[in-house]
Amino acid sequence: MNATPIFRRVALIGFGLIGGSIARAVRAQGLASEIVTTARSEKTRTRVMELGIVDRVLETNAEAVQDADLVILCIPVGACGPVAQEIAPFLKAGAIVSDVGSVKGAIVREMAPHLPASVHFVPAHPVAGTEHSGPDSGFAELFINRWCILTPPDGADPMAVETLRAFWAGMGAKVEIMTPDHHDLVLAITSHLPHLIAYTIVGTADELAQVTSSEVIKFSAGGFRDFTRIAASDPTMWRDVFLNNKEAVLEMLGTFNEDLSKLTRAIRRNDGEALFEHFTRTRAIRRGIVEIGQDSAAPDLLLRSALDSVIASAAKQSISRHNGWMDGFVASLLAMTPRVSKQRVGWMG
Amino acid sequence: MNATPIFRRVALIGFGLIGGSIARAVRAQGLASEIVTTARSEKTRTRVMELGIVDRVLETNAEAVQDADLVILCIPVGACGPVAQEIAPFLKAGAIVSDVGSVKGAIVREMAPHLPASVHFVPAHPVAGTEHSGPDSGFAELFINRWCILTPPDGADPMAVETLRAFWAGMGAKVEIMTPDHHDLVLAITSHLPHLIAYTIVGTADELAQVTSSEVIKFSAGGFRDFTRIAASDPTMWRDVFLNNKEAVLEMLGTFNEDLSKLTRAIRRNDGEALFEHFTRTRAIRRGIVEIGQDSAAPDLLLRSALDSVIASAAKQSISRHNGWMDGFVASLLAMTPRVSKQRVGWMG
Repeated sequence: MNATPIFRRVALIGFGLIGGSIARAVRAQGLASEIVTTARSEKTRTRVMELGIVDRVLETNAEAVQDADLVILCIPVGACGPVAQEIAPFLKAGAIVSDVGSVKGAIVREMAPHLPASVHFVPAHPVAGTEHSGPDSGFAELFINRWCILTPPDGADPMAVETLRAFWAGMGAKVEIMTPDHHDLVLAITSHLPHLIAYTIVGTADELAQVTSSEVIKFSAGGFRDFTRIAASDPTMWRDVFLNNKEAVLEMLGTFNEDLSKLTRAIRRNDGEALFEHFTRTRAIRRGIVEIGQDSAAPDLLLRSALDSVIASAAKQSISRHNGWMDGFVASLLAMTPRVSKQRVGWMG
Repeated sequence: MNATPIFRRVALIGFGLIGGSIARAVRAQGLASEIVTTARSEKTRTRVMELGIVDRVLETNAEAVQDADLVILCIPVGACGPVAQEIAPFLKAGAIVSDVGSVKGAIVREMAPHLPASVHFVPAHPVAGTEHSGPDSGFAELFINRWCILTPPDGADPMAVETLRAFWAGMGAKVEIMTPDHHDLVLAITSHLPHLIAYTIVGTADELAQVTSSEVIKFSAGGFRDFTRIAASDPTMWRDVFLNNKEAVLEMLGTFNEDLSKLTRAIRRNDGEALFEHFTRTRAIRRGIVEIGQDSAAPDLLLRSALDSVIASAAKQSISRHNGWMDGFVASLLAMTPRVSKQRVGWMG
């Protein structure tokens, strides 16, 4: 817990994976004296109250932003413009207004015109997520060692930018600053195009006549599985990303299609050398990612297999109280990975 | 350890990820009285001897297969025909000859003509792997809860097929039998096309003028990272897969391209409904995979984050002896995930 919170009151508009993770991280790290939130559906608001991880759950966006020092829109990109317009009259002078959208050019175009000159608008994009959504899906560790990109407009107050940087750093993120347009190009290749491709191939597999869906599902460990994880991401969020970063995505898609044609031609012509050369080059890129710590060299399945084995063998032997380290192991999972514990550690208790 | 080994002598030709994992699993489960192996390079043979996980390391394929009851070719698909020809004169009558190739039609075409009628040829494909290769990359748990597909030719000896099934089941795999051609179609969509797509997009990212490689690497957590893992797989193995399953891969690629064009058109025309409908459908497929246990619902990063936190906090506090459960936790990792332990648990000792 920080000795001095960075903000007195933080208001979160929307409580899905990202909003819920911010709330949990802010509380865990003591980054604000008070967290208030709201959500569009009553069901979500009720659930957030049950979870007990924010100070107050309010019915409207207008109520939520009142007296807030930091307001973060944690909603799909397409909803940010209208919500900016709605909250504008209720914002406190000097407040920082931010968002978490995966597209930044459109966010600036849609939100900025509505916001009063008395507030500091500093758009943000935490590059972190899972394929899950909803108020239960968040966790306080989501942003640890992940990048958060800020795209302050020209002439933004340096103090406001620094304060927001400190806030994200407080949740464990590494912070980078770039222009909205450059952000949208970088994310088009590192995130938006991969999602589009994954969505496509999972759809293709679903429609095949020669191979049944149950076969696709059964034998997915050969590579397909990794695509299904990505293609299970929130449909509303991703619809809005593609509609709002259209130009950059279409540009990257053009280059991708050219490259795919090249590899296709190599296969058709039995050009083993061209394939080998390409595959060797891509392997080197993976090493770069592992080296800078944005992924682990340990195969996921090893980690999963470790957990599976421990949990399965514990279940079989009905141990948990008799074996000290097992208690500790599970306790550490419970503490750090609430989702894992709920879903997988059903053998306890 | 099994009371009675299934085979007296098992010979592994090649000792990469798959060969090395079979050796470790066979020993762990006591599936053979003796494991002999060979590898093309002296460096690999020396390393296998150092590892001490097989009974004998031989210099030539001919020596390795002599007196073996089961011979498994654990080498790239393209090398299987020549090696079948090379070992044919030295095979014991009644021996089972198998492989682990990701393509089955070509394997049957290339290997079968060389093998004597006195042996049982039962091709196999364990649908399991990681992006790592080499003699150190294998681990005994690789096949647990994964599928192994057998593609026995018409008229294969049912006893030989059953014995091989028991062998793979003994290593923890679930076994399915299908024709080589159907196997190649199923794998084209669940494995070969995903790899081709991943190899393509990682190459595309590497060539962009507008976005630097270091930016791609830094912000890879947005989805790209998952593709790089796949695109880091062994180049020789994958060159051979594409050259040997050309027709099925090109067919699936055709369908994929049509589907990608449809989604591209939806983006270009701002057709949010079409995008939303597609993304909702693909999400359901993911649920199917999680339900039948071919993947975990828990985000990988949660598991990674759990491990990272435990290890980091242990390192910081210099605990290991004073905290009973930490010892146990790490011991269980050491036992089950030798690669993880070596790379990540450097704080011990």
